[in-house]
Amino acid sequence: MMLADTIWTHARLATMAQARGGLGIVEDGAIVARDGQILYAGPAKALPADLDARQRIDLEGRWVTPGLIDCHTHIVHGGDRAMEFEMRLEGASYADIAAAGGGIVSTVRDTRAAGRDSLVAQTLPRLDALIAEGVTTIEVKSGYGLDETTERCMLEAAALLGQRRKVDVVRTYLGAHALPPEARSDREGYLDLVCERMIPLIAAEGLADAVDAFLEGIAFTQDEVSRVFQAARRAGLPVKLHADQLSDLGGAALAASFKALSADHLEYASEAGAAAMGAAGTVAVILPGAFYVLRERQAPPIEAFRRHGVALAVATDCNPGTAPITSILATMNMAATFFRLTVEECLLGVTRVAAQALGRSARIGTLEPGKACDLAIWDIERPAELVYRLGFNPLWQRIYRGS
Amino acid sequence: MMLADTIWTHARLATMAQARGGLGIVEDGAIVARDGQILYAGPAKALPADLDARQRIDLEGRWVTPGLIDCHTHIVHGGDRAMEFEMRLEGASYADIAAAGGGIVSTVRDTRAAGRDSLVAQTLPRLDALIAEGVTTIEVKSGYGLDETTERCMLEAAALLGQRRKVDVVRTYLGAHALPPEARSDREGYLDLVCERMIPLIAAEGLADAVDAFLEGIAFTQDEVSRVFQAARRAGLPVKLHADQLSDLGGAALAASFKALSADHLEYASEAGAAAMGAAGTVAVILPGAFYVLRERQAPPIEAFRRHGVALAVATDCNPGTAPITSILATMNMAATFFRLTVEECLLGVTRVAAQALGRSARIGTLEPGKACDLAIWDIERPAELVYRLGFNPLWQRIYRGS
Ligand SMILES: [Zn+2]
Ligand SMILES: [Zn+2]
Repeated sequence: MMLADTIWTHARLATMAQARGGLGIVEDGAIVARDGQILYAGPAKALPADLDARQRIDLEGRWVTPGLIDCHTHIVHGGDRAMEFEMRLEGASYADIAAAGGGIVSTVRDTRAAGRDSLVAQTLPRLDALIAEGVTTIEVKSGYGLDETTERCMLEAAALLGQRRKVDVVRTYLGAHALPPEARSDREGYLDLVCERMIPLIAAEGLADAVDAFLEGIAFTQDEVSRVFQAARRAGLPVKLHADQLSDLGGAALAASFKALSADHLEYASEAGAAAMGAAGTVAVILPGAFYVLRERQAPPIEAFRRHGVALAVATDCNPGTAPITSILATMNMAATFFRLTVEECLLGVTRVAAQALGRSARIGTLEPGKACDLAIWDIERPAELVYRLGFNPLWQRIYRGS
Repeated sequence: MMLADTIWTHARLATMAQARGGLGIVEDGAIVARDGQILYAGPAKALPADLDARQRIDLEGRWVTPGLIDCHTHIVHGGDRAMEFEMRLEGASYADIAAAGGGIVSTVRDTRAAGRDSLVAQTLPRLDALIAEGVTTIEVKSGYGLDETTERCMLEAAALLGQRRKVDVVRTYLGAHALPPEARSDREGYLDLVCERMIPLIAAEGLADAVDAFLEGIAFTQDEVSRVFQAARRAGLPVKLHADQLSDLGGAALAASFKALSADHLEYASEAGAAAMGAAGTVAVILPGAFYVLRERQAPPIEAFRRHGVALAVATDCNPGTAPITSILATMNMAATFFRLTVEECLLGVTRVAAQALGRSARIGTLEPGKACDLAIWDIERPAELVYRLGFNPLWQRIYRGS
């Protein structure tokens, strides 16, 4: 007789397990947890006979998905950009806003000024909004410090979020987000800092699990990103890329050539880029929130991704400038509405595929034995309801590491 | 010495009072309530000297707005349309969906089948989502029954919402929403029912405060709507109109010619229509949620409305088909993002102007003496934050009729 911690019964499971196909649905399902891990997830009638548990919970037919994963955020930052938002609606020009101290520079300034504990305090309400929707894993990028002290500070703040809340925080170093104001006339010097000092330090101290960069006319070039990625490779860190958001600079193919975990945004990615990503196993992270806020017209080439077998993840991109968004449910709704992702693609995109985009497939993202027991339990009649509504949260309970 | 019930101090007020201009801001403000009404709302330093209260609440600088008003919803309905949503994303045609029992017909069927208490039970979670964002008044339309029994049932369910929750429900009879399936070959007969039987009955029994209609190629014609509006006029009920959403059928001008409280949607309204509305004092109710869900491209003529002095309200349109949306905050964000409404227009649009669209200006919508003491108290630094974010709810406390 084996004693587990908890058995959930009368559950309808969307296991997201690849082997089961689609959402991996099990209609009369049960889940067994021990020591924070899933021991069993499948048909109730196939529950191991020699199993008992400290507690049994009858879910009365509720749906269970893996805890949701927001695999692309800039949620740790100082200040907000509400004033800039207001000014823009009143017709202020880019110059007006810059003169009033707006733009990404203002977020860098506010983040540098904040200090670690203030960053944590400012971030917690945003994180809590995501947690309230069943998010159990969140990726957090640095990239508003752009100097050693503040980048470290952001990554430490991100780690502290995981101590203050029952949530798994996956950290990404995004030194190559923007050129800091003080380096305007010395791009090379700033890239030296990122590649020669910061990346080795990040790796040595375990401050982040991956390295990200922003390839764009307003950010860094192909050559500069390649240099950053080579430094990451030397340091043994996987890479991700903000790619082809506002123009096709070959970001998808560049990311694929470095076997990036993911390329993100991708509105202007080419067919060749999609093919390269498919061959490399690079996930496409779809970020409809920024598309919405920026009022873009060009959708990412979803059909090309499907054709080339590129897995699709969906994330909030939570950031103060182009996506002040803290709802993963609303984000799925936008991915379906704007980009015609199916319900299945949306739900896999915030579970199994999001885990893949973080290099965590072995640990999270599906309801399968050996995975962390992170669950979202929903008061719904069918999984499509999680995508169909806007501004409605049917979460009944969230389980993190078995409790 | 006068004894009030409550004094809120250290409040930053967005009173929305017309006389103060803009959002009617008072930086160091106080509010005094007695018997559910506002006795005083203004600068703390001008508080009447001869005033005491049973309780004093220090708001520590938080912002206070009037309780929010959602002035256009179809929130009472049976069932949902999640299956249809899912099918459409998988490429199903209109015919496929109709064959699977989808479309408005399915909502009519589910609403007829539900019964009053089930309608209340199904609606409460949706209503609770709005209440959680500070909504204190909600308009509810009938129009999924389309027979005497079920239209009455919907309006009774709407009234019951106001007993089950601390919220003011304003009811609108929308018999002319669609032709019921059984009347396909007898439009005239159905309009007889609406005009000769239902409207007089609604007025006699006080089942609704206004009459609405849907003027559109897929719904009713100018002549049919005029007939409905004439019946409403005879019955002493004000009118509203679903106008010019998908095509310009002269709805704005028609509404104005009947001195309608509001014309709603208005994507295709003409300059002349806007001018007529301005002259008639008819409010334009902007519904960005349906625009979003239907992926429309044509925005309502906001500039024309401004030019002609048409007041703008903003509402969710909460309905199962074209706006399964239960967030007034997200709706403001969409109004700003899609239609470039300013922060001020958005906030007035869910307070003072929304009250006007409901014919309730004397009672709600601003923080002024004599109004109901319905408050939304927010943990924010500036009102723009209520519009700037998506999927974040900074409501600190909601006060309905003084408590
Ligand atoms: Zn990003
Ligand atoms: Zn409507």
